[in-house]
Amino acid sequence: MIFAKENGRTIPKEDKVFALSGRAKEAIAAKGKDAVINATIGALLDDEGELVTMTSVVDTIMSLTPTDYAEYAPIAGTPAFKEAVQKALFGNFKPSGHVRVCATPGGTGSITSVIANYSEVGDFVLTHDWCWANYKNICSQNGRNLATFSFFDDEGNFNAADLEAKVNELAAKQDQIVLMLNTPAHNPTGYSMTLEDWDAVIGILNKASCRFALFIDVAYIDYAGEDDEVREFMPKLEELGDNVLPIFGYSASKTLAAYGMRCGAIVCMTKDEETAEEFKKVVEYSARATWSNCNRAAQVVMGKLYAEPELQKKADDERRGYRNMLLDRGKTFEKVLNDNGAKCVPFDAGFFVTIACDDPAALGAELEKQDIYCVSLAKGIRVSIASISKEKCVKCAEAIAKLLK
Amino acid sequence: MIFAKENGRTIPKEDKVFALSGRAKEAIAAKGKDAVINATIGALLDDEGELVTMTSVVDTIMSLTPTDYAEYAPIAGTPAFKEAVQKALFGNFKPSGHVRVCATPGGTGSITSVIANYSEVGDFVLTHDWCWANYKNICSQNGRNLATFSFFDDEGNFNAADLEAKVNELAAKQDQIVLMLNTPAHNPTGYSMTLEDWDAVIGILNKASCRFALFIDVAYIDYAGEDDEVREFMPKLEELGDNVLPIFGYSASKTLAAYGMRCGAIVCMTKDEETAEEFKKVVEYSARATWSNCNRAAQVVMGKLYAEPELQKKADDERRGYRNMLLDRGKTFEKVLNDNGAKCVPFDAGFFVTIACDDPAALGAELEKQDIYCVSLAKGIRVSIASISKEKCVKCAEAIAKLLK
Repeated sequence: MIFAKENGRTIPKEDKVFALSGRAKEAIAAKGKDAVINATIGALLDDEGELVTMTSVVDTIMSLTPTDYAEYAPIAGTPAFKEAVQKALFGNFKPSGHVRVCATPGGTGSITSVIANYSEVGDFVLTHDWCWANYKNICSQNGRNLATFSFFDDEGNFNAADLEAKVNELAAKQDQIVLMLNTPAHNPTGYSMTLEDWDAVIGILNKASCRFALFIDVAYIDYAGEDDEVREFMPKLEELGDNVLPIFGYSASKTLAAYGMRCGAIVCMTKDEETAEEFKKVVEYSARATWSNCNRAAQVVMGKLYAEPELQKKADDERRGYRNMLLDRGKTFEKVLNDNGAKCVPFDAGFFVTIACDDPAALGAELEKQDIYCVSLAKGIRVSIASISKEKCVKCAEAIAKLLK
Repeated sequence: MIFAKENGRTIPKEDKVFALSGRAKEAIAAKGKDAVINATIGALLDDEGELVTMTSVVDTIMSLTPTDYAEYAPIAGTPAFKEAVQKALFGNFKPSGHVRVCATPGGTGSITSVIANYSEVGDFVLTHDWCWANYKNICSQNGRNLATFSFFDDEGNFNAADLEAKVNELAAKQDQIVLMLNTPAHNPTGYSMTLEDWDAVIGILNKASCRFALFIDVAYIDYAGEDDEVREFMPKLEELGDNVLPIFGYSASKTLAAYGMRCGAIVCMTKDEETAEEFKKVVEYSARATWSNCNRAAQVVMGKLYAEPELQKKADDERRGYRNMLLDRGKTFEKVLNDNGAKCVPFDAGFFVTIACDDPAALGAELEKQDIYCVSLAKGIRVSIASISKEKCVKCAEAIAKLLK
């Protein structure tokens, strides 16, 4: 470092995913898009490789007035946005306690906020071993450490025993743990925690000797399955003890299929009004002292979509169509993989499927030779089924299964 | 604190400015907008109290395609945006060294970025005693301390002697200092550093025993005066020694008069390519690990505006009109104040004028009784001339001068 300060971070010279995606684009330019499988992109593309946008959303964007763009939004978001987020996040579930909402720049901002406000420098934040790589960067950026528990046991079930062991280990060192669970349609595996998994988690947290900020990253909830079904775990959160504060990380960018608008929210749900007010106070303070207010246009769009039942229905219907396309790709990918003697890490739904392997970098390099571009993780390879057609899912799964033999 | 962690921050229960602005809005609702002077708003309003938007910008927004909103922008911004920022920031000045640009959520994001990447936890960041209150919050949010030098001496000139004293004091403790200077059209005073001020700063930094990240917050540059004149200090920065890295905080939200779009950038300018590459690496890393990428639509608008000379001219002309309106308000405010035997902190241009006084809170309360709403700072009262008509500038200046007698 010359002028910059490393500050405990390990900053790579180059973003590997960015470089990989650059090579994929070059290959497409040279050989045509049919010849290349670019499964690196974390956005939903249609079968022709075009970014999916929703007519209901686009029409609403086009109806905005100049002031909708120009005016500062309040730090926590416009009142209509905060209402909309509650409808979008909770669906038909009505929390009995106190809910507070604060706008964040995408889902990423909500993770920054929970870490900055509910843990201390040097703390360990706990999450599943399969996790979005950026969890670690965000911890590191904030001087926190990331500890992990094994997400799955040897049978491929949720590993409650390891969660409990890691919780007890950390509880001996910290009076409070930020526990981050990304579900449903977990990135990168596509796993959705079952109601039984949730019972186990609640049991473990309720009897632990420390407090928890339980951060549930629901970025992919709207692509995980039917709206009511994927929210069935929410009422269970009301069984959590006074030592646990549930906090959601919500990504409106994904709900709207408008990633570039950077619209998300951090949302708490608690029986204790004072805890809710404290949440409001700290997350708004840190927002103001980090990025200030958020993109107003996106908030107005959310407000409009969820204020008009007909418009909301139109958006929900559109999204259901794309979601079914995505679910079909996922199930197809998994079936082809299985039919060819391989398997993926437990998968239910979402943008990604992951295949565990001993040498992900080598597997990635072999795939690249066949013009198949996937992101290598520490313990496996991640395939973005969101960004490739069903036909390419078949080819990709076959190629991976063959290489793993 | 119940679940939240104070983390060295002093988090107020309520945002005072927000509460004040709420009371101003209530007064307007009750008594009509002509009867109330709401000089709390940090955005440019026309003489009727309506938010100023630029036709060139609005037309460009309306020309965007769905993908312009929907697609993720690269972390550092789209190539066209990065080009546009250089044109917008530097105008006719062509830096001879290496420039790197990274998108940030508004000007606030650029401040977060420089502090997170160019200072360490526990460090002192140095700025002028008159400063945007959020500087302190951002330091505090990042575990840094804010040290200040007296911006002005007793004659109302730039206080180079105190800057030098404070630099030497900190240089004894730190090997590097982030020095933040907000100019031209400084918030909250409206002061623009002169070329002589800059000579003094450059002399002090070049002979100091430590390194500097010299952060120049130019958020209000496009409202400070004629484009070339307000950039005359820029070539001087090339006289800085190897121990100083100049970094700009740029606010496209203000250039576009589209605050709600949250579009800004952090920009470095250095003779050393390695230092430039290091800048790119660390600011992109911290962006990804804090808010990820930024609002793409705003980037596309910037890209289009600055790629088309005619469109840029149209925007520049529009802005000049509003800027002249603003400059006229400022000069009028200052004159009325002086004519009534009072004076403001040295003022040149910009959104705000500040009047020093012994008990700002009491002065603010007295003004509020007359339905004049201004923000009380530690050492004075801040009047947003950006948000009130020339007529109200006269009334406000008269009222303040009278109360100060």
